[in-house]
Amino acid sequence: MTSLAVAPELDAAGVRIAVDAMGGDHGPTEVVPGALDHARAHPEDRVLLVGDEARLRAIGGDLPANVTIVHASQVIEMDEHPARALREKKDASVLVACELVRNGDADAVMTAGHTGAAMAAAVLRIGRLPGVDRPALAVQMIRHGAPFVLLDIGANPDSSAENLAQYARMGAIFAERVLHIENPRVALLSIGEEKGKGDLRIQQATELLDLSGLNFVGNVEGRDLTGSQADVVVTDAVAGNVVIKFFEGLSTFIFDLFRAEFGGSIRGRLAYLLFRPSIGRIRSVFDYERAGGSPLLGVRGSVIITHGSARRRMIGFGCGVAAETARTGVPDLIAAALQQGTAVAAGPADPVVPAEASA
Amino acid sequence: MTSLAVAPELDAAGVRIAVDAMGGDHGPTEVVPGALDHARAHPEDRVLLVGDEARLRAIGGDLPANVTIVHASQVIEMDEHPARALREKKDASVLVACELVRNGDADAVMTAGHTGAAMAAAVLRIGRLPGVDRPALAVQMIRHGAPFVLLDIGANPDSSAENLAQYARMGAIFAERVLHIENPRVALLSIGEEKGKGDLRIQQATELLDLSGLNFVGNVEGRDLTGSQADVVVTDAVAGNVVIKFFEGLSTFIFDLFRAEFGGSIRGRLAYLLFRPSIGRIRSVFDYERAGGSPLLGVRGSVIITHGSARRRMIGFGCGVAAETARTGVPDLIAAALQQGTAVAAGPADPVVPAEASA
Repeated sequence: MTSLAVAPELDAAGVRIAVDAMGGDHGPTEVVPGALDHARAHPEDRVLLVGDEARLRAIGGDLPANVTIVHASQVIEMDEHPARALREKKDASVLVACELVRNGDADAVMTAGHTGAAMAAAVLRIGRLPGVDRPALAVQMIRHGAPFVLLDIGANPDSSAENLAQYARMGAIFAERVLHIENPRVALLSIGEEKGKGDLRIQQATELLDLSGLNFVGNVEGRDLTGSQADVVVTDAVAGNVVIKFFEGLSTFIFDLFRAEFGGSIRGRLAYLLFRPSIGRIRSVFDYERAGGSPLLGVRGSVIITHGSARRRMIGFGCGVAAETARTGVPDLIAAALQQGTAVAAGPADPVVPAEASA
Repeated sequence: MTSLAVAPELDAAGVRIAVDAMGGDHGPTEVVPGALDHARAHPEDRVLLVGDEARLRAIGGDLPANVTIVHASQVIEMDEHPARALREKKDASVLVACELVRNGDADAVMTAGHTGAAMAAAVLRIGRLPGVDRPALAVQMIRHGAPFVLLDIGANPDSSAENLAQYARMGAIFAERVLHIENPRVALLSIGEEKGKGDLRIQQATELLDLSGLNFVGNVEGRDLTGSQADVVVTDAVAGNVVIKFFEGLSTFIFDLFRAEFGGSIRGRLAYLLFRPSIGRIRSVFDYERAGGSPLLGVRGSVIITHGSARRRMIGFGCGVAAETARTGVPDLIAAALQQGTAVAAGPADPVVPAEASA
């Protein structure tokens, strides 16, 4: 890996974002333009494009002054087994990006690559926060009024009830420190509000959360995700991932329906002209690309994982989330809250289990 | 339980629907009017209102000629433990409704009561089809073009990989025999299309489905639920239930947004007038109440379970689904296909495990 001297001209408010330029379904053809969009819009930040130098240079063309290429000769493909791939590909772009953060040469990582590999790379190279067993992917979801935090949306399949309780704690700290929600209400996603419902893991996690010292308001259903019952909703990777991707599919589906109706007749086109300002407002509510990406809570650095299918626009917003997470110092806030044992961080400490790169 | 002579005047095309009139969040105040709506619209059918006779008579008023009250003195509440409640309340309305089907006095059951209790009552009183380990709740979901079948949406938390494979088989038979889809494509809901993704159960179920003889097209993500990759999508009760309820919450949320925009200005009201026919078409796509309820696949009778929160209109449609399921003979079609070992029914038979009322 090339040695770096990337920050001499860095503005006080600027941060350095290591972008895994090779990851994702579309690879550098979408990631590079998206990252450059961020670099041009935010000259105070520095963007480190990590990947095959020749290829990135060919795609990037004349790079802005605040963009540097950091060579990495390997890529972890979307269908590889993450633990095996990380063992065999020591110069993979996602690993090199994480090493930049570990070595103090970058402040954040942004990747559209394999979620499992990104999480494992972050745990192996950057490490978990003290007291954190498994990091979790969090997302801010829309609803009437303020957003809420949903986690885990895909970092850890096969989470235990204890893991879910810890996600609740990290989510509450995120809601309190980053969203500035006092004493955030925490809920567990289930198939009914009654305690006996849900699978065994949900029932066990409910008992743990009852005793957690968190402001646990009980179990909520899928329909409550558009309501305002809770500020933090905890679920496992499968249900969380299905929800978030279903929302995205449905958003596209709905706008396709409206587009067909507005375009289908003169009457529709006239209605569209009258209704255009409203359409803009409604569309912005469902603009999931603007969410950019999800912070991986529980690691010692700012790591943002976005969709494998993300294209240029979403990648650009993802770099924005990475910059904001690093600027806010989210990992430090979570670490401090866990150490201080504040209201949301109180409760029995979880044992630190040795890092194991999981699928 | 009162003895019955309910069918002398029954039309050839008519069926007898035993409605658990006491179940659901709103109880008889919504269930009775909904059931009466069906009875009035379908004089060829007969509706048996099962529950507290005095209360049902008070709510129902002058009953149509094709409606009979069948007294049941007990109710299973939404927050009761289903197995315990079924043991202790032998005269519960949902049990009595299932007994009507078992005894040949009704052709279908419709309930808005506790899902776990309804499933257990159906298994205990009506029984499972030969070769079926656990019944599953199926729903027809919207998308561009034809509907697809999603199951299980809440019957069995803690399903095994083997259970998921069996849901796939029943869903495929339903798609083939009821929706008339030839060689239906079956998919498993996961957090990515790649085989290594998802939790352990998903990975094991993927292997079983690969060997099942079904037209298994692999794993799909939440976003694919609005696409047309598969005719049958298999998932576990938690993810399935969360998806279906999130869809409903989101539908309401979207229409609230549009209502606010259309009503918010003169311009909006004018656009609404122009756009009204389109709104009607779009609304119908998201009209989940019209789905009525979900057939419980794998039991020896037509059992429809609708939302605990269902109100009059949805209850009415639920009775329609019950009538249609009984008229089509869905349980017989599934039984025949499982026995014949047709393309979709082929594969190793699952062992019949003794009925156990689960939560």
